[in-house]
Amino acid sequence: MNISVLGTGSVGQALSVRLAGLGHQVFMGTRNVADSLQKTQPDNWGNPAIGTWAKEHTEVELLSFKEAVEKGNDLIVFALNGKAVFECLDAVGEAALNGKVLLDISNPLDFGQGFPPSLFVSNTDSLGEQIQNKYPGLKVVKTLNTMSNPVMVNPHILQGDHSVFVSGNDAEAKATATRLLNSFGWEDRNIIDLGDITTARGTEMVLPLWVRLYGKLQTPFFNFHVNTAKAQ
Amino acid sequence: MNISVLGTGSVGQALSVRLAGLGHQVFMGTRNVADSLQKTQPDNWGNPAIGTWAKEHTEVELLSFKEAVEKGNDLIVFALNGKAVFECLDAVGEAALNGKVLLDISNPLDFGQGFPPSLFVSNTDSLGEQIQNKYPGLKVVKTLNTMSNPVMVNPHILQGDHSVFVSGNDAEAKATATRLLNSFGWEDRNIIDLGDITTARGTEMVLPLWVRLYGKLQTPFFNFHVNTAKAQ
Repeated sequence: MNISVLGTGSVGQALSVRLAGLGHQVFMGTRNVADSLQKTQPDNWGNPAIGTWAKEHTEVELLSFKEAVEKGNDLIVFALNGKAVFECLDAVGEAALNGKVLLDISNPLDFGQGFPPSLFVSNTDSLGEQIQNKYPGLKVVKTLNTMSNPVMVNPHILQGDHSVFVSGNDAEAKATATRLLNSFGWEDRNIIDLGDITTARGTEMVLPLWVRLYGKLQTPFFNFHVNTAKAQ
Repeated sequence: MNISVLGTGSVGQALSVRLAGLGHQVFMGTRNVADSLQKTQPDNWGNPAIGTWAKEHTEVELLSFKEAVEKGNDLIVFALNGKAVFECLDAVGEAALNGKVLLDISNPLDFGQGFPPSLFVSNTDSLGEQIQNKYPGLKVVKTLNTMSNPVMVNPHILQGDHSVFVSGNDAEAKATATRLLNSFGWEDRNIIDLGDITTARGTEMVLPLWVRLYGKLQTPFFNFHVNTAKAQ
C-alpha cells in the first residue's frame, strides 16, 4: 500500500520503518520539511532527531502533511501528539481526507501539569470521535494507542498473549486495520473490536493507568491483556 | 479480623461471604436494617435481595453503617455504589473512621445517560482521593475496583495471570490490603502497588474500557493482566 505517516517523532519513525520493511511505500508527513531536516538533537530518550533519522532512512520520503497524504493515500496513520491533530489535518484539508482510512494511534495527553499527564478530552468524548465528527468523510479507526511504539509494531517483543483494541464506525476500514495489525504480528485472538468510534473513550482513558505503570515499572515494554480464560 | 462491609448489593454480598468463609467476623452495613430485611425482589441479574440473602447468611450480622463500622473495626470495605460514598461515610462519622483502614473497591460510575456509564469524577481527581481528602484520619486503599466481584474474591476463577492494583498513602494499610488479597488467592506477582492514592485516577479511569468489554464479551468473567514478559 501507499501509506502516509503523519508525525516525525519516535512513534512516527517506528511505524514508518516497520511499514517500509513490510514492503509498503511510506510517505512521512511533517509541518515543514526544511525545518525538520535541520533537526539533529536527539530527544530526552535518545531517539534520533528527524533530520538525522531521515538521512538514514531514505526508503521513507519526507513531505509536507498534505503531500504525504496525497501520495500515501491507501492508508493514513496519525502518529503525532494528540494536541496537534487539527493543526495537522486542517493542513491536509477535507478534500484530500474524504473517503480515506485514518488509523488514529494518538492520545489526548496534557502534560501542562507535568508527569503524569491528564487528558484534555475524556469521559463523554474522545479524540477519535472529535476527528470523526470534524471529518465525516474520513474513516477513522482508533487502535494501538494503549501501548508503546516498540510493542505496537512488534507484539512478539513481549511473551504470551496481550491485547490491542480497535474502534471505528466503518467495518471495511476496521478490516484494513486488522490486516495491518496481523502483518505486525498481532494474532486475531488478541485483536478486540470494541465497536464504534465512541468506544475510543474507553481506550484513551486507559492512558492514565498506562503512564502510572510506566512510572512504576520503569520500562515501556509492557501491555494490557484481557484475560477471559475461565478455569475448567 | 473484625471486618465491616458497607453495602448490601451483589458486591457486598460476595465480599461478605468470602470474608466469613475465611474465618473473619463480618458486619454488613446498610442505611436502614428494617428496610433492608423487607427487600425480597432479586435484582436484574438474578442476585438475591438483601432481605432474602440475610436470612440465608446468618454468619453475617446486618447492622446500620455506623454500628457495622464500630463492630467491624479492624478493616472497613466500602462496597456501595460510588455515588453513595459520602452519604454512607458521613453516617458513620469521622470519630469512628479515624485511624481505620478502608478498602475502597467502588467506582464513580454515572448511569445518568444509560449504558455505558461515564464517570462523575475523573482525570484530575478520583473517588479514592475524595474519600482520603474528606477523612484525613482514614487510611484509604483503593483496590479491586477494576474487575467484577466473582473475580475479586476468587482470582483462580480465571486461568493464568491477571492483575490487581493497589493505591494508597499508608504503607501499613497497603500491607493489610495485600495480605487480604493473598488470602483471596491473589499471588504477589499479580498485585501491583501503583503508589499513593492519586494513582486511583488511573484505575478508576479503566472502567469506561471495562464496561465496553463487558458489553462486547457478554460476561463479567474477565480481567486485565499487565504483561511485562519480554521475549528472550
